[in-house]
Amino acid sequence: MRVLGIDPGLTRCGVGVVEGVPGRQCKLIAYYVIHTEPDDDIALRLLHLDTSLADLLAEHQPQSVAVERVFSQHNVRTVMGTAQASGVAVLAGARRGLPVQTYTPSEVKAAVTGSGTAGKAQVTSMVTRLLGLDAPPRPADAADALALAICHIWRGGTRARIEAAALAASRKHRGARR
Amino acid sequence: MRVLGIDPGLTRCGVGVVEGVPGRQCKLIAYYVIHTEPDDDIALRLLHLDTSLADLLAEHQPQSVAVERVFSQHNVRTVMGTAQASGVAVLAGARRGLPVQTYTPSEVKAAVTGSGTAGKAQVTSMVTRLLGLDAPPRPADAADALALAICHIWRGGTRARIEAAALAASRKHRGARR
Repeated sequence: MRVLGIDPGLTRCGVGVVEGVPGRQCKLIAYYVIHTEPDDDIALRLLHLDTSLADLLAEHQPQSVAVERVFSQHNVRTVMGTAQASGVAVLAGARRGLPVQTYTPSEVKAAVTGSGTAGKAQVTSMVTRLLGLDAPPRPADAADALALAICHIWRGGTRARIEAAALAASRKHRGARR
Repeated sequence: MRVLGIDPGLTRCGVGVVEGVPGRQCKLIAYYVIHTEPDDDIALRLLHLDTSLADLLAEHQPQSVAVERVFSQHNVRTVMGTAQASGVAVLAGARRGLPVQTYTPSEVKAAVTGSGTAGKAQVTSMVTRLLGLDAPPRPADAADALALAICHIWRGGTRARIEAAALAASRKHRGARR
């Protein structure tokens, strides 16, 4: 299974592509950080993010997408932009007809380190080891996106398959809901 | 100038289409409320919102889009969904190459009632009068979206024109930024 993980952000959005099956070592395919300029208009920033994500999905053809769930306990100003970016990230996967699964930061940390309260350094260290890399991926946004993809693979594709079925079913009667 | 106003929301997203020029009576073209099911998966909800907005933009061919800016002083759980919906709303306009302007709730209230702290009933009442309607638009989500469109028209197209130029310029070197 090939998974594209997205750590949403407006200024820096991490993207990690990983291939693997539950319980085995995963393989790194690619990782990226999409930047948008804080001084740019919000419409331009979201458009750039959308276009970049669409390009990466087309290039890497993942079977599913994993996106970090946004919480609002962080900085209030930052979190609104992050939430908007996460909306665009989830939509990018859905528009390609892919199952999209969201995970909380704790779920991701627990999946790759065994502890839901692990720090950034520990997550990066485990991602490096789990993917068999010589050096840690930089910057950290990319490591988080890779951890998301690994988390999704290890938790199995069950939920992803259910959602794919739901998405297909929903598309049939989408027009009736406006 | 024809403006499509969007009052973003995940469960109910108001859309209002209004035509007019600064300082004159505006004309109602149409209004809608896009519903998505709270029990549905977030990816399905955002996809339905995106598809519906794209359909309405194609149908009504506005020159610009006005979206209400989201603040986080509201219910924390609701506001994350609203922020995701607003990201999708802003993106919907930008993807059509339209200038997208965001307004705070106070700016909208001040534009249509003269007071930035006016209540919902006052906004609805003024929208009804300003558009020369026999009865207030229902539900209130639609009234807010119409108020946004009126606000944008009355504040003039200056900012919209600047943004259209910026959008066009940005598209030329979009590829360089990943």
